[in-house]
Amino acid sequence: MAISDVKALTFDVFGTVVNWRDSIAREAKAFLGPKGYEKDWRDFADKWRARYQPAMAKVRNGERPWTRLDDLHRENLVELLPEFGIAGLSEAEIDHLNRAWHRLDGWPDSVEGLTRLKRKYILATLSNGNVALIVNMAKFAGLPWDAILGAEVAQAYKPLPEAYDRSARLLDLAPGQCMMVAAHSGDLVAARGRGFRTAFVSRPLEHGPGRAADTAAGHDFDVVADSFIDLAAKLGC
Amino acid sequence: MAISDVKALTFDVFGTVVNWRDSIAREAKAFLGPKGYEKDWRDFADKWRARYQPAMAKVRNGERPWTRLDDLHRENLVELLPEFGIAGLSEAEIDHLNRAWHRLDGWPDSVEGLTRLKRKYILATLSNGNVALIVNMAKFAGLPWDAILGAEVAQAYKPLPEAYDRSARLLDLAPGQCMMVAAHSGDLVAARGRGFRTAFVSRPLEHGPGRAADTAAGHDFDVVADSFIDLAAKLGC
Repeated sequence: MAISDVKALTFDVFGTVVNWRDSIAREAKAFLGPKGYEKDWRDFADKWRARYQPAMAKVRNGERPWTRLDDLHRENLVELLPEFGIAGLSEAEIDHLNRAWHRLDGWPDSVEGLTRLKRKYILATLSNGNVALIVNMAKFAGLPWDAILGAEVAQAYKPLPEAYDRSARLLDLAPGQCMMVAAHSGDLVAARGRGFRTAFVSRPLEHGPGRAADTAAGHDFDVVADSFIDLAAKLGC
Repeated sequence: MAISDVKALTFDVFGTVVNWRDSIAREAKAFLGPKGYEKDWRDFADKWRARYQPAMAKVRNGERPWTRLDDLHRENLVELLPEFGIAGLSEAEIDHLNRAWHRLDGWPDSVEGLTRLKRKYILATLSNGNVALIVNMAKFAGLPWDAILGAEVAQAYKPLPEAYDRSARLLDLAPGQCMMVAAHSGDLVAARGRGFRTAFVSRPLEHGPGRAADTAAGHDFDVVADSFIDLAAKLGC
């Protein structure tokens, strides 16, 4: 199948569409600062995020049953708080802070780029975020998705094959009619392994200024772009 | 919970949001007319639709495994064609005609009303239509959904309880934070039985001029409206 056969773009979200690091730092500071805590909130975001892959790994390998990302995030938060000397939050306060992941900002080009891409393509999320998280984030950040697919609906965390296979199946598309869009080469390599087309969008600030971010170097992705506006232009939108 | 606690509106689609009868008649005429067939295309639409509930019943009662609505529609079409003396279509032509259900027009108030409602609420489909069908219809008719939920994602056809329960669960909402919107009282009664709030929107032309359509008479739904614009006004949007 040719690139012109692509009907749907399926998106990684954390890091690719939204700037989780600065948003989590902002939310943590806004909530915990008034309680008297002065911390490096970007470090707090980094350390919370560092627990993401290990938590999902236990679900992927069958060590524990299917668990939504909201629940993994919350368990990770409960472990993280004492590391930063934060104590005494109520269950409702922990819930509120945990839902910071529902209140992430898009990158500056995200809404404009997605709006252009939506004219020509079905835009579906193919994130490890659960449905409620991604829906609430879309309302918060104005992200114009056509469908919320991905890990919870597929009951499989990326990069497991089922996450990609079941998402394409729900759209009733052949894998080659889907193009995975991500700032992470591992996600794209996994998607390509299931027959998807691939678009790498670089997000050099994902981990902060001066810190290494993933690149497309050494890969042969179908499209490489430096923003969603650039992606729209390269896809003729 | 009060009406003011509602966070998401979950929509029945066929008949409630889109005018399936006139749209199917238009699509059938456009495709089969040039092949020399002159039929009562609204009767064709009615008879195709009449096979909808019996086909789903076999899935609901476990007589056959989960089957997508697109596949049920296609089986029903293959049975219907000879009733109308239509023969000789290729498999690809049958597929095209079957996907007429992906090309249904909204009622005249649908896009404007949904756009107003979307400012305040999460708008999710809770239809028996499969994901691809509802996504493609949304692109065709300009319907601004936030999430595509319902039967295929829940793996249960309405009015089975699981269709409602799993949709609310995916939104991480209590049933009382969801309001089912439908032109069919049976759908609303089933949703209310699972704890949903209910909004009846009358669609007197669903089955054609002069033919009976469902009403809210004898029920005590939370809201009764005669269009999505009226619903938006009644919900303060």
